[in-house]
Amino acid sequence: MNNYDSLILGVDGGGSKCRVILFDQEKGILATGVSGPANVMRSAEKTIEHIVDATDKALAVLDLPPSHKSKLVAGLGLAGLNLPSCQQAMNEWQHPFKQAFFTSDLHIACVGAHKGDDGAVMIVGTGSSALAVENQQITELGGHGFPVGDGGSGAWLGFKTIEYTLQSLDKVVEPSELTKAVIAQYQVANATDLAQLVSRFIPADFAKLAPLVIEHAKQQDPVAISLVKQGADYLSKLAKQLLADKSCSLALIGGLSPLIQVYFDNQIQQRIVPAQLPPEMGAVLYAQQQASN
Amino acid sequence: MNNYDSLILGVDGGGSKCRVILFDQEKGILATGVSGPANVMRSAEKTIEHIVDATDKALAVLDLPPSHKSKLVAGLGLAGLNLPSCQQAMNEWQHPFKQAFFTSDLHIACVGAHKGDDGAVMIVGTGSSALAVENQQITELGGHGFPVGDGGSGAWLGFKTIEYTLQSLDKVVEPSELTKAVIAQYQVANATDLAQLVSRFIPADFAKLAPLVIEHAKQQDPVAISLVKQGADYLSKLAKQLLADKSCSLALIGGLSPLIQVYFDNQIQQRIVPAQLPPEMGAVLYAQQQASN
Repeated sequence: MNNYDSLILGVDGGGSKCRVILFDQEKGILATGVSGPANVMRSAEKTIEHIVDATDKALAVLDLPPSHKSKLVAGLGLAGLNLPSCQQAMNEWQHPFKQAFFTSDLHIACVGAHKGDDGAVMIVGTGSSALAVENQQITELGGHGFPVGDGGSGAWLGFKTIEYTLQSLDKVVEPSELTKAVIAQYQVANATDLAQLVSRFIPADFAKLAPLVIEHAKQQDPVAISLVKQGADYLSKLAKQLLADKSCSLALIGGLSPLIQVYFDNQIQQRIVPAQLPPEMGAVLYAQQQASN
Repeated sequence: MNNYDSLILGVDGGGSKCRVILFDQEKGILATGVSGPANVMRSAEKTIEHIVDATDKALAVLDLPPSHKSKLVAGLGLAGLNLPSCQQAMNEWQHPFKQAFFTSDLHIACVGAHKGDDGAVMIVGTGSSALAVENQQITELGGHGFPVGDGGSGAWLGFKTIEYTLQSLDKVVEPSELTKAVIAQYQVANATDLAQLVSRFIPADFAKLAPLVIEHAKQQDPVAISLVKQGADYLSKLAKQLLADKSCSLALIGGLSPLIQVYFDNQIQQRIVPAQLPPEMGAVLYAQQQASN
């Protein structure tokens, strides 16, 4: 007979979706659930709604009622939770769990990547940011939001590519195979049409261009190489600064990281290790660490 | 006794306000009126409302009723009117004037700057863009909208300064007197606070930083010099491309242009002439040209 009275809930709440797992100390992951975005900066209300929804879905897998949330110890890593105003919003939540430990999505990614040990992570996906945990000290760098921050990210790379393509259409810079591919992809006739199209772009739309840029860099397109190197240079500097006074290793996560990693500084490359566990398991480990304190 | 039956209305409709003049062939400018923004891309409805409001205000100066609009020949230069969709919106307007001739705000600025003769203009204010009229051919370059376009503009310069300042707070790049001045101006404690502040910025907010950057460039701050030169380099290239196959001269307009002009390419500097008439007079000249065709 199953005893579900000491399950741990791990929540990975990101800008596009909220993913949860129900973890049993002996049997491992028993159920998963997914719901909408959990970015506290955008909406604390929606974040709460999606955490509850994803959790209820996971409980349903085990034929457990929503009321079972009161028996769960929860670790929650949520986008935006590096900001004090967002932390406050979550602290004010009369949450339905037995216990709840909140931190940022980046933090649980780091805990997961290094299985709870000291270490650093850099996320290179739609956005970019970096975090290290060493001797219980958390250091966070980068991020700061697209377009003024998140250098080297997918959104940034797409943005720089559009910026360059617009200038090439004005004949202010040289066109290349990459700029031709961008124009072909969007089927635009001129700079005005391209500018109007991208005026409605969200970061994820810009990020969709990143694989095309990486592909052209591999084919030695000079514009693509220059942009990718510019992004990789920033990310290398960010990683170098993050690891400067630390001995820990660095795990890279996010869709763009395997593609851009080869352009990183040698010094950084040597400190890179694979991530051991996914963020939602990091959330479980975080809950365990905090509950035992 | 005054005869107001052949007045010409000149409208300079920009993104922050709409400015109109009533012009008499013999007596010159008789009245002016100002109202809210006239950016057709943002709102055709508001644009129309503000054109009518500014015109009624100018008519009131001469004790003329709103119904007098039906006797006016109007030249209207409006933001966004380089875009076909915006042109269509204005063509569909059952306007109250005797005759109305629509074009872009940049075009009337050019007509005014060169008193109706062939010539080129570059606007460097909150945004940036360039246009030339030669042998009745209009060439338009740049613009494309902040942040992906409008290189070298006030908004762009402020944006690049914030981007650099955020990186300096992460110790990824060197701080300077400029980055210290930015931090002091916004009274922020760290990169997270600065990022959160600027996440709500509109282009005009970024542009407010431009004079501070120029000031620091004059004081030889290396970061300010590098950013201003980067902007001036783009604008020089834009001007060079615009004037490449033309013999006309270039007038610079917009609040940032006298400040950034000194950093332009020599070749471009030599083609610069002062603007002769303001954009609203350009709108009057444009109406006269079109009405006589």
